[in-house]
Amino acid sequence: MAAQITLYTAKICPYAQRAEIALAETGLPFKRVEIDLKNKPEWYPKVNPRLQVPAITYGGADHPPEAPSPDSEKIAESLVLVDFFNDLAPNHPLLPTDPVLRAKARYFVEAVGSRFNPAWFGACARGESCDKIFEAIESLQALLPATGKYAVGDEFTIADVAAVPFFARMEVTFREDIGAYAQGEGPKAWKTIVTEPRFARWREYYANLKARESFKKTFDEEFVKRAFAARFADLRKP
Amino acid sequence: MAAQITLYTAKICPYAQRAEIALAETGLPFKRVEIDLKNKPEWYPKVNPRLQVPAITYGGADHPPEAPSPDSEKIAESLVLVDFFNDLAPNHPLLPTDPVLRAKARYFVEAVGSRFNPAWFGACARGESCDKIFEAIESLQALLPATGKYAVGDEFTIADVAAVPFFARMEVTFREDIGAYAQGEGPKAWKTIVTEPRFARWREYYANLKARESFKKTFDEEFVKRAFAARFADLRKP
Repeated sequence: MAAQITLYTAKICPYAQRAEIALAETGLPFKRVEIDLKNKPEWYPKVNPRLQVPAITYGGADHPPEAPSPDSEKIAESLVLVDFFNDLAPNHPLLPTDPVLRAKARYFVEAVGSRFNPAWFGACARGESCDKIFEAIESLQALLPATGKYAVGDEFTIADVAAVPFFARMEVTFREDIGAYAQGEGPKAWKTIVTEPRFARWREYYANLKARESFKKTFDEEFVKRAFAARFADLRKP
Repeated sequence: MAAQITLYTAKICPYAQRAEIALAETGLPFKRVEIDLKNKPEWYPKVNPRLQVPAITYGGADHPPEAPSPDSEKIAESLVLVDFFNDLAPNHPLLPTDPVLRAKARYFVEAVGSRFNPAWFGACARGESCDKIFEAIESLQALLPATGKYAVGDEFTIADVAAVPFFARMEVTFREDIGAYAQGEGPKAWKTIVTEPRFARWREYYANLKARESFKKTFDEEFVKRAFAARFADLRKP
C-alpha cells in the first residue's frame, strides 16, 4: 500500500494550488485539509513550524489531521511538493525526459517566481502600478515555444503547474478591481492584456492552462474572488 | 560525442560557483569562460540577455566563447544548471533516489536561498546587522540530520552545492571585516559562529563541505577576498 499523503492547503493560496494541481495530475490519493490562513489552528506548527501552506504529512500511521503521526515525514514548500509528487508518481508525468526541456521547464518556474509574482503581488498588496504586469507577461511570453500548448511544448509540466495559479489570481483580482492599487487600474490593465496583440501568445497559453482539468478542479473562482476582496479590502488608499 | 558545454562564470559569484561545483561533481567536460562582472563584454547578451552568470551554451557547432553558435541552447540560473548537469550525468550523482531525501534536498536549497543568503547579503551590501546570520544558521542547522556528512545524509547533493558557495563567502567577508555593516561587526559575528556551542553541528557540516574536492578546486579564497573588498569598499558608512 502506498504511504498516505495528507495535504494541508487553502483555496485562496496560489502556492497551495500548485500542490493540488500536481496531485491531480499525478493521480496520487490524498486527504485534503483546508487551513484557514486568517485563523490558523493551534496544532498547525506540528505540521509546518513555519506555518505556511501547502505542507504535507507523508507516511506513518493513519492519523487525524490535527495530530500528525510522529512517524510521518513533514514536507513543505510548493515547488518542493510539486517535484516530490512527480518523483512519487511511477511515470513522472510533470517533467520531460529530455534534459534540455527539463531545464527550460525549471527556468520558466524561476521566471514565474522572480518576474510575474512580484509584479502581481506588488500591485495587489503594496499598491504598485498594475502596468508592471505587462513587462512580466512579455518576459514569460518570450520563453514560450513558437508552437505547443504549454510552457515548453505539448507536455504539461512543472512550469505550467507553477504558473497557472498566479495567472488566474491576477485575472480575478485585476478584472474585479481588487487590490491596493488605485481604483480602476486593475480592470484597465486586464483589458489591455485581453485585447492588445502584443499579448496574443500569452493569452493562447493561458487559455490552454485554464482548460486543463487539473486546474479547473482545484480553482474555485468565486471563493478566490471573495477571499481576496476581504484580504485586500483595507489596503486601497482613498 | 557529448554535446559541448561552455560555462560563462565569475570567480567572485556564489551562484556561478554552484554551477562549477556541479560540473566538477558530475565530471562533465566543459570550457570555462571568466566574465568580468564589473565590465561585461558587449557580446554577453548573446549568451544571456539578462546578463547574469552563470550561463551556458550547450550543443551546437564548436564556437569561440564570444560568438555562440545559433544552434546551441542557452541556459541560465544557477539552480537550473545544477539540475541540468545532474540530469546529463549518467548516474545523476547529485540527487538521492529516495523521493523523501530528494524533497529534503530541495527544501534545504530553498532554505539557503530564502534564509541564509538574504541575511549575509543584507549585512554586506545593505549594512544590516551581521547578527541576523545567527538565526539563519540555526534554522539550516535544524534541518540537518543527526548524523551524516552532508545536508541530507552521507551523499553530497544539490543541497550542498547550493549552500557552500554562500557559506564560504560569508566566512571570508565577515572574518575579514568586508562589507557595508559597521566596522568590526563581521569578525565579531564570525568569532561567535566559530566558538559558540550552539553552532557546533553547523560547523561540522561546513567543515565537511569545505573539505570536498569540488569545492576546493572551484574556490579561490584570495581572489574572492580581494574582489569583495573592492566591491563593498564604498558601502561602509563612516
